[in-house]
Amino acid sequence: MKALVYGGPGQKSWTDVPDPHIVNPTDAVVRIDTTTICGTDLHILKGDVPAVQEGRVLGHEGVGTVTEVGSSVTGLRTGDRVLISCIKSCGHCGNCKKGLYSHCSGEEGQAGTGWIFGHLIDGTQAEYVRVPYADNSLYKLPHGVTDDQAVMLSDILPTAFEIGVQAGCIKPGDVVAVVGAGPIGLAAIATSGLHGAATIIAIDPDEGRLLRAREFGATGVVNPSGPAWISDVMSFTDGAGVDVAIEAVGIPDTFDMALRLVRPGGNVANIGVHGKSVELRLQDLWIRNINISMGLVNTNTTPMLLRLVAQHKIPAEKFATHHFTLAQIIDAYDTFSRAAETHALKVILSRESHH
Amino acid sequence: MKALVYGGPGQKSWTDVPDPHIVNPTDAVVRIDTTTICGTDLHILKGDVPAVQEGRVLGHEGVGTVTEVGSSVTGLRTGDRVLISCIKSCGHCGNCKKGLYSHCSGEEGQAGTGWIFGHLIDGTQAEYVRVPYADNSLYKLPHGVTDDQAVMLSDILPTAFEIGVQAGCIKPGDVVAVVGAGPIGLAAIATSGLHGAATIIAIDPDEGRLLRAREFGATGVVNPSGPAWISDVMSFTDGAGVDVAIEAVGIPDTFDMALRLVRPGGNVANIGVHGKSVELRLQDLWIRNINISMGLVNTNTTPMLLRLVAQHKIPAEKFATHHFTLAQIIDAYDTFSRAAETHALKVILSRESHH
Amino acid sequence: MKALVYGGPGQKSWTDVPDPHIVNPTDAVVRIDTTTICGTDLHILKGDVPAVQEGRVLGHEGVGTVTEVGSSVTGLRTGDRVLISCIKSCGHCGNCKKGLYSHCSGEEGQAGTGWIFGHLIDGTQAEYVRVPYADNSLYKLPHGVTDDQAVMLSDILPTAFEIGVQAGCIKPGDVVAVVGAGPIGLAAIATSGLHGAATIIAIDPDEGRLLRAREFGATGVVNPSGPAWISDVMSFTDGAGVDVAIEAVGIPDTFDMALRLVRPGGNVANIGVHGKSVELRLQDLWIRNINISMGLVNTNTTPMLLRLVAQHKIPAEKFATHHFTLAQIIDAYDTFSRAAETHALKVILSRESHH
Amino acid sequence: MKALVYGGPGQKSWTDVPDPHIVNPTDAVVRIDTTTICGTDLHILKGDVPAVQEGRVLGHEGVGTVTEVGSSVTGLRTGDRVLISCIKSCGHCGNCKKGLYSHCSGEEGQAGTGWIFGHLIDGTQAEYVRVPYADNSLYKLPHGVTDDQAVMLSDILPTAFEIGVQAGCIKPGDVVAVVGAGPIGLAAIATSGLHGAATIIAIDPDEGRLLRAREFGATGVVNPSGPAWISDVMSFTDGAGVDVAIEAVGIPDTFDMALRLVRPGGNVANIGVHGKSVELRLQDLWIRNINISMGLVNTNTTPMLLRLVAQHKIPAEKFATHHFTLAQIIDAYDTFSRAAETHALKVILSRESHH
Repeated sequence: MKALVYGGPGQKSWTDVPDPHIVNPTDAVVRIDTTTICGTDLHILKGDVPAVQEGRVLGHEGVGTVTEVGSSVTGLRTGDRVLISCIKSCGHCGNCKKGLYSHCSGEEGQAGTGWIFGHLIDGTQAEYVRVPYADNSLYKLPHGVTDDQAVMLSDILPTAFEIGVQAGCIKPGDVVAVVGAGPIGLAAIATSGLHGAATIIAIDPDEGRLLRAREFGATGVVNPSGPAWISDVMSFTDGAGVDVAIEAVGIPDTFDMALRLVRPGGNVANIGVHGKSVELRLQDLWIRNINISMGLVNTNTTPMLLRLVAQHKIPAEKFATHHFTLAQIIDAYDTFSRAAETHALKVILSRESHH
Repeated sequence: MKALVYGGPGQKSWTDVPDPHIVNPTDAVVRIDTTTICGTDLHILKGDVPAVQEGRVLGHEGVGTVTEVGSSVTGLRTGDRVLISCIKSCGHCGNCKKGLYSHCSGEEGQAGTGWIFGHLIDGTQAEYVRVPYADNSLYKLPHGVTDDQAVMLSDILPTAFEIGVQAGCIKPGDVVAVVGAGPIGLAAIATSGLHGAATIIAIDPDEGRLLRAREFGATGVVNPSGPAWISDVMSFTDGAGVDVAIEAVGIPDTFDMALRLVRPGGNVANIGVHGKSVELRLQDLWIRNINISMGLVNTNTTPMLLRLVAQHKIPAEKFATHHFTLAQIIDAYDTFSRAAETHALKVILSRESHH
Repeated sequence: MKALVYGGPGQKSWTDVPDPHIVNPTDAVVRIDTTTICGTDLHILKGDVPAVQEGRVLGHEGVGTVTEVGSSVTGLRTGDRVLISCIKSCGHCGNCKKGLYSHCSGEEGQAGTGWIFGHLIDGTQAEYVRVPYADNSLYKLPHGVTDDQAVMLSDILPTAFEIGVQAGCIKPGDVVAVVGAGPIGLAAIATSGLHGAATIIAIDPDEGRLLRAREFGATGVVNPSGPAWISDVMSFTDGAGVDVAIEAVGIPDTFDMALRLVRPGGNVANIGVHGKSVELRLQDLWIRNINISMGLVNTNTTPMLLRLVAQHKIPAEKFATHHFTLAQIIDAYDTFSRAAETHALKVILSRESHH
Repeated sequence: MKALVYGGPGQKSWTDVPDPHIVNPTDAVVRIDTTTICGTDLHILKGDVPAVQEGRVLGHEGVGTVTEVGSSVTGLRTGDRVLISCIKSCGHCGNCKKGLYSHCSGEEGQAGTGWIFGHLIDGTQAEYVRVPYADNSLYKLPHGVTDDQAVMLSDILPTAFEIGVQAGCIKPGDVVAVVGAGPIGLAAIATSGLHGAATIIAIDPDEGRLLRAREFGATGVVNPSGPAWISDVMSFTDGAGVDVAIEAVGIPDTFDMALRLVRPGGNVANIGVHGKSVELRLQDLWIRNINISMGLVNTNTTPMLLRLVAQHKIPAEKFATHHFTLAQIIDAYDTFSRAAETHALKVILSRESHH
């Protein structure tokens, strides 16, 4: 089969690799119908994630069709149309029993789990993929949910909801600031209303993204390029700060912005994937009764979010801005990596060409 | 009356000041029967808290007898024996309605609230003190609770329980590490069992404090001076880290220790009062699903803790290691400030000499 | 002044009574600009609430203007336009400190609190009313909120939200059934979305009310008159039942309906005011892991709901179906008591005629 | 093999039945080393549980040794010493993903799940038992935990903790009443401290059981035979009632007692297995802000409780009052069914005679 193979920093190719097959009885093999590219894939290609070895097939998002199931897979059959979750979980270990699927410690004789696709095992930017713990990692798609919608549930929607909205403890009536209006920030904006957020302020220096933020549900927008940006945000509050600040970028400046905006008693929810330390001004913060959360998605909410997408309550399809075939994946990476110019949110790669 | 007056960095004196009197109808005046000294008072004396002006009477902990009440105080009478809470709260503002008494925004015509005694208004290291919002800041003492026990409820017990145990979300069966076994760390150890902590590990370089930690309920102790201290702590866990790490010192090293000990999905609860920034290694932490909390006590749990002290369920009296009269307060400061030598936890200052 | 006075079962009159005045320093006197009638007032008039004595001025909802404040009221001034909450709370007692304002135990020398207006003390269906604990019971109205909107915050909106939505623990994505589409059921429907309810099923035998339910946000409606009503409701679920069933009528049949609809692991939230015992079939229910909640509103959420009304996020004005002057209150009672014919939801009574 | 076989109402025999074997790849077969008898087994023998068919092997509690594992069981090997949980769960269905294992809906081709041992499939009062979903239903026993201790974790300890203490939302400092001091009530008493209960009142007409209740941690006891029992209970409170009342019997009278004891804002947690309806006086209760919970154990807390037993923090061994061999099971049933005379709590049945 063909797959997008990592060849070391700066190197990638769409090339022939062996077909995947069942290794453990809990595995399934899935034909990829639709996949997409994540910001994390760009980080890997820069060489920022040393755990990814040369020869690895990238990608951790996808929608496909089951072509083979292991002997102990009970909930799936060949031909099932499925959502592939970015997280693998055994379902039995101590962390899984607590719902902390992101830190599944797996079972004897199997590689580590959690986020492993396109990282520790071959991923979804390929014609086929082997899926460990298939009963826990694949979700049958209901009729009427398109591939474009479903693939947003592999990672960005549950990540934004669990690590932003839930971990941030958004409550009815809250004022929420989302720092960063890229795909993950927009997904946080789109799902904040599920916890009753009343005022949702998008903060981003790109005016195009601020326009999009309004489409996804922001009630106010602030461009942080100007000197008055903090007081602009405060004008949406009673003056004491926002109830919840969501960091959706992953750099020290944006993390610091979130901390400056939050009110006493409020929450800062970090979704961003960081590459550097940040300075935490505990001399000012210790007295403020704030909470800082961070983490990898558990995907506990994937079935619920899938139902909401099926009911047209979350506009998942709006994230899909550009379409390619799988064979055009090098072009797709180019478009996605120049998002500032191309205005790409998520680029869709399909087995068959998009009509 | 006599009071301990701050005279600028390094300067303090037990000297004559005007008697306090009722200013607002919600005030009471209380005669101090027992007070104590907090680590924060030492910080103020070093000049670390610039908001404290010369001439301020220090102290925010105490037990006393009501001598006068304002016209709208309804729950107290002259002669009532009361616990003085370190936090003042109006009971009506938005933060008070949420139980966030630490950030009470007060009422028109009154100074800021929250922690104000010995900080923004005159405090309790004096013969008398004016108590704003007396109905919300004083608690009548039940029979059988001694002054030595009660004064631990002004600050250290509610602070350790609310900001350590509650904010750290300790759950039944949890493994808890407490970094720092001074008064506040010991108070966290003494109250962790209220949330069902099963293993409580005290970490402190002072072996004397580790012995005390066992008396207050630690099930294990670790001296961090040696190179194997992390693996010593891990030996009390399943290898993945502690469920909750409580920081009870307030310096960058101890904050970092707490972060190194916590398991994925766990909590770091900061109680320490910090004077410097810390480096937060988000490049490692973002993926670990941890939560970092911090803050000033709200005293919501003061009545509950007072009942438990009355029932002999919390050994509050054990914190009282040295006794002085109010007039001996300069000596008491000396003893408290040399705790490493004197083994002082809390020094007690009484109106009458202790028998 | 004039007021609506209870004269024993079946007897009421709009008649002269003495003007109210300040009794305790925490009181205010408010001129009623707008009031309304509650289903509970009809119960009182039938003689169902024996605690209400002859001569009592009825009514516990209202919007008005402060005309006098007691000496210890700090947050209000003469001339303030205020919402009058149906619950009085001292703010200091054990229950108030827990936020359980509905069961405020009050202070020495004052009558019991919680719901007392038009019950244990004179109420709001009058030209003026004395409001105890004014700082905790009155809310200044922001500009742009009309009297018609605000008066829905005296009782029905916080009651439906706190006792239905919050106590029912509605979670994002939930399927919710609301049994009874009168004012309180419609208010539950209108606020379920604040907790992320995805499917909201209104159940009522009156087709007119089912139409209204859709206007307030119901996504499905079921008339329980037919034999298939249960399977009609189940068709909105996965077959196991609804996540949360809200009882908003107050009779044994509707309580039983709620229990029949709820799934294992779900919640039944009773808002209805009941006059009779119900049979609880514990032989079937003990194994179902359900929770049954009930209670009187605490009004903790009143400020938050008021902000949402001001932001046009809750269509409070839609409850106001009929308008009268205060002097026409006997007619208003007639209209409200014949709601099946008149299609009245809430009847509005204004000091000045409505334009 | 030999097993205790139900022969219809009033009929049981220790007799030959076919050996169990692996049916599904997720099964294990376990040799029973220790089992016990539950009150529910007595109900079944009376004919109260019609779902139990003649020929069924009874029992849902046990400790044993794995003798065979299915092809997809990954966490267990032959020879492992295991705790057998009373609940079976597939780990993949919607309810399992929510942790609601008690209502596992199982997988295609398998019988219903949740509580099925000795009910819908053959149980543990036998020499061997087939265990479905073995990875989710068996727990490897740590060294140092005896069979007598471990078998209390099959049902009574997790049931009392989850359905009594957790569902009852016991909080630090709470006053708790436990109605019924049989094995399940005593298990609730023994685990209430994990949530910080400060006052635990056992209520039972049997003075012998009240003595035992004190051994398990009750701080007060009340015999409800006398007329003043309610005021006796209230004397342990501030007069308003207990924070949490746990029903641990299963008859209308005891359920009613729990409701009479609970304070406004409190919780009634029903653990009892009921055979009859109860009258719920909603006319009095609707205004009291109480919560009533009920359900079947999920066993989510079994691993945590097992750790606490291993750490000697829960005196599980104290429940084991009488010992028999498996072959003496008819005598054991006799002793258990006459608990009032024999003072039996749990009778232990061992493969080999107890030394």
